[in-house]
Formats: sequence, structure tokens, C-alpha cells
Amino acid sequence: MSEKIRIGICGYGNLGRGVESEIAKFPDMELVAVVTRRKPVESLRIKADAPVIHAENAIDWKDKIDVMILCGGSANDLPVQGPQFAKIFNTVNSFDTHKKIPDYFRVMHNAAKSNDNVSIISIGWDPGLFSLMRLYMGAVIPNGKTYTFWGKGVSQGHSDAIRGIDGVVDAIQYTIPADTAINSVRNGENPELTPRAAHTRLCYVVVSETADKARIEHSIKTMPNYFDEYDTTVRFVSIEELNAEHKKLPHGGNVIHMGTTGDRNNKIIEFSLKLDSNPEFTASALLAHARAAHKLSEEGEFGAKTIFDIPPIYLTGLSNATRELL
Amino acid sequence: MSEKIRIGICGYGNLGRGVESEIAKFPDMELVAVVTRRKPVESLRIKADAPVIHAENAIDWKDKIDVMILCGGSANDLPVQGPQFAKIFNTVNSFDTHKKIPDYFRVMHNAAKSNDNVSIISIGWDPGLFSLMRLYMGAVIPNGKTYTFWGKGVSQGHSDAIRGIDGVVDAIQYTIPADTAINSVRNGENPELTPRAAHTRLCYVVVSETADKARIEHSIKTMPNYFDEYDTTVRFVSIEELNAEHKKLPHGGNVIHMGTTGDRNNKIIEFSLKLDSNPEFTASALLAHARAAHKLSEEGEFGAKTIFDIPPIYLTGLSNATRELL
Repeated sequence: MSEKIRIGICGYGNLGRGVESEIAKFPDMELVAVVTRRKPVESLRIKADAPVIHAENAIDWKDKIDVMILCGGSANDLPVQGPQFAKIFNTVNSFDTHKKIPDYFRVMHNAAKSNDNVSIISIGWDPGLFSLMRLYMGAVIPNGKTYTFWGKGVSQGHSDAIRGIDGVVDAIQYTIPADTAINSVRNGENPELTPRAAHTRLCYVVVSETADKARIEHSIKTMPNYFDEYDTTVRFVSIEELNAEHKKLPHGGNVIHMGTTGDRNNKIIEFSLKLDSNPEFTASALLAHARAAHKLSEEGEFGAKTIFDIPPIYLTGLSNATRELL
Repeated sequence: MSEKIRIGICGYGNLGRGVESEIAKFPDMELVAVVTRRKPVESLRIKADAPVIHAENAIDWKDKIDVMILCGGSANDLPVQGPQFAKIFNTVNSFDTHKKIPDYFRVMHNAAKSNDNVSIISIGWDPGLFSLMRLYMGAVIPNGKTYTFWGKGVSQGHSDAIRGIDGVVDAIQYTIPADTAINSVRNGENPELTPRAAHTRLCYVVVSETADKARIEHSIKTMPNYFDEYDTTVRFVSIEELNAEHKKLPHGGNVIHMGTTGDRNNKIIEFSLKLDSNPEFTASALLAHARAAHKLSEEGEFGAKTIFDIPPIYLTGLSNATRELL
């Protein structure tokens, strides 16, 4: 492998900075440019020794970038940025709005396929490796049930939801799985778990001086979709404490499959992650999949792909030699 | 899916009987024949309502079986049976002599490819799902180290090795991982583990009335490759106790990857299995991969494949719809 895979980063938030830091651990890749929407582009200072280019000029880099890693958010950035860039480059992203993935897939597939590009979507841990584990576990032991637990870790979506409440300056929300629920699954009790039984939510909230704490706490605990179905604890803290103690964005979780074969012979399969930094994990997973996108593109397998569609061997720099690793 | 995938079983030991019992849990498959080398074939009684046919006549079933599941052992059966059947049928097997896999792959690839068949080799948990986990973990977090622990469970190879000693009537050997080693890995200590530090071995041995127990115990504990590098405990038991307590063949284990991103942010990824019946697990995994073999064959992707080569989606009965599962 003499020629390195030329990587572009689009978007320079937590995730983009993660890709910038982790690419050094992928010896077959090099960062060639960071794309931003800021004007002037000089106002974006990056750590890497690579040019910063404006999104409007990205087309000029079509032949200089093998895979563009889209590091925008799922709510507002990726729905627009995704199909736009999929027309120009092979792309990889971490689109994580589960319910919208099938629709997003179709949009990305059309954009990529009609321009001879590959777009791998929804990479990370959930969706991503956790999805993959649910698929393998269910396929290999079909007579069973799969449970997913998230945490302990920071949910960016729930943190953002709290930040939207009037009087809130900043907030961090931890999702915490219930030990009783996990143990019940591991013991083969096949529980039916309500949201409340499976997870609790713990919120660290910074409010403005004049804010009504009782009202804010009530608004959080009763917020539909986000908090109303859970036991939620709210702790008001200073901005200093929040920044010092709660900005590392750890996360993790467990996928547990409990099934049987033969005459009630139990099979327990479990996959777990414990991540000090969620964005850096996702960044590293995106880079491994950029390798796959590049290979699929070289083979002419254009269009959108998910983690389900990719032969595992494509994530490695190796080819046949990986049989030695079996 | 109106037409079921027509499955043949070749070999009717623990694994073959496992496939026979588990196929009921795969609604898109049906068992159409069991192949044996016994003569007359009537001497083999099976549970399923399917014909028993002699290996010499298997060729007559070429167009009636979509995938033949090869259930022989890796030492003597699969090296012969594998390439023979790969010339006639799509096949799946659990060849598990790790060091010989690359050579076996080449032999199977030639036999399958030149006859427009697919052969998926080395399916099970190790080689198999554990290999897959080692690959994904190392690809996604390259700056890390992966550990594999086996057990507690019965190693058939080690049990057979004890049975080969003069005076031994029967034996079951349990491989047991050392908790101290597992905890050291989980705590991020990146230990260098010798075989002795990682696993111990526990043997239940039935001997003949006149046997010299001290000699047998010494022969076991000093046996090269199998026991000499481990702390081994030998317990002499009656044949009744062995049959009552130690014939269910449980197994399991853990693959643990400990890596870092960014500025010493730890990432721990762990995959574990706990199996009451090892042969039934392998049987069920073989059936899931028979589905993939059938699909690859329909697509004309002939030749040998390992678990590394197969898009995960091929293990499911689903196609595009599985994107809903992300």
C-alpha cells in the first residue's frame, strides 16, 4: 500500500476534531483538507497541518480527496450536507436519528449512485457497532431476545433538550442503565422492560441567576419523549463545576442476547463498550469505514451502504492475509 | 421467500444432531437429507423425517440440496470431506485448526470455485464470531491490544488427548480463564499474559481398574502443547459421575480489546459468550451461514469464504428491510 487514502474532514466540532486526532493511528491515511462553512476560512484555526477550505469550493477538491468524512450533526447538518457532498465525494457519516435512517439511506443512495460515489451512513456505536451486534446475535441464535442498554454516559440530544429551556445556561445529561434490569437479562429472566425500568436520567444544570429552579426542574421531568417516561434526577451546579467535571463526553453500553437451543440450553451473548470519549470513538470508527468506502469505490460498488452491507475484511488494511487472523 | 433453502447434513455426531435440532428455528430452511459413510445406511437412525443417504451417492442429490453442512471433525474428516463435497455442493463447515486455515482455505477455494460452488469455512465461535470481534475491535480502535479468554468450558481437543493415554477409559477437560488475568485486562493494565497466567485446566478422568493413577496424572500434566504450559488439576471419577455431570459440553469465553484515543482516553470493548451447549451453538451459527452461502451462490460469488468476507446482512433472511434495524 504505497499511496495513502486521502481524507477530508467536513465540519470541525467535537467529531471533526476527533477525526483530526485519530487519523495518526491509521498509517494508510492522510488528512488533506478541512472543509468549513465559516467565512473567512482563515477564522477557523485547526491543529493539523492541512488547508482549510470553504464548502463552496469543495468541488475543486473532487480529485484530491478519496473520502470526505462528514462530521456535522444529524438534526440540521447531515440532511443537507450529506446528499450535497455525496454527489462530489465518497463519504462516511454518523447519521444517528434511528427512525429516519431508511429515508436518509434512499436520499444518500440516489445522490451517491448517480455520481459514481460510495456513501457509508450511520457509523458509530448506536447506530453502528451495536446495530451490527443485534444483527449477528439474532441471526446466529434466532430463538432469543436482544436487549440494549445505554450508559452510563452523556446523551447529547437530551443535554440539548435541557439547554432549550428558558433560564438554562448549560446542561449535561447522563443516561444510566438500571443494574437490576441488566442482571435480570443476564440471569435469563427474559424481562419485559419499560423505559423506566431499564434506564434512569441524571441531569447537571446551570441556570441564570434569576431563574426559577422549581419551574425548570418541572419542565425537565415532564418533557415528552425525552424525560416523561423516566425517573429523572436534576442537580443544579455552577458553570465552573459543569466545565470541570462533565465535559469529557464518556459513554458506553451493552447489547445482550439471551436465547436457547435444543432442550432449553441457554445461550448468552453480550457486547459492551466503555468509552472515555464518545466523539473520539465515533471518529475512529468513521476512519475504519472510510477505508471500506475507498475499497468499495475502487470496486465500482457505488451507492449508499450501512454497516450491515460491508464485508468485515474491508475495514482492515489487509486483504487475504487476514485469514491468518481467524 | 416462498422456496425454502434445502439443507443437507453430512455427518451425524454432536454437531450434525445439533443442526438437525436447530433447523426448526430457521423458518426459511428445510432438512432434505442426512449423508453418512455407514453401511448399510439403514443402520443410522436419525430423529428427523428425512432420508439417510450414503456419501457415495451424494452426487445424485446435487440438484436437490442448496447447501450441504459438513459436520465432520477438523482433524480427520473435513480435510477429506471438505474438498470432495465442495466440488458438488455449496458447503459450510466449522474447520477449527487455526494454524491450518490459510492452507485449508486454498484447497477449498480451488474445489468450490472451479465447480461454481460457494464454501464458507471455519464458522463457529473461535474461529468464527471471536475472530470477527478481534477484527472489528482492532479495525475500529487500532491503537490497542486484544485479548481472548476461553471458558469455562469443555475443550474437545484436550479431552481427546487425555483419552489417548493408556489406561484412560474416558475424560473431560475444562479450560478455565483466570479471573485475575481478565480483571487486569479490564482495568487497563495491558498485561503480558503467559498461558499459565491466563488459563488453568481441570480434568475429570475415568481409568480402568488396574491403571496406575500416578503415572496417568503425570502423563497428563507433562503432555507437550496440551498441558505442560498450564497449571492442571486432575480428578479421577467414576464413569457414572462423568456421564451424569460432564457430558453437556458447555463453553464460552471473552474477547476484550483495550485501546486508547486522543490524550489517553480509554476504550474498552468486550464480547462474551456463555453457552450451555457448544455443539448446538456451532450448529446454529452454521445454519445462519448456510443462508449466506445460498445467497452468495445465487449472486455467482463462487469460491471459499470466511466470516470476514461476508456482508453481515447476508446472515439474515431480510434484505433492505434490515436498515430499519439499525
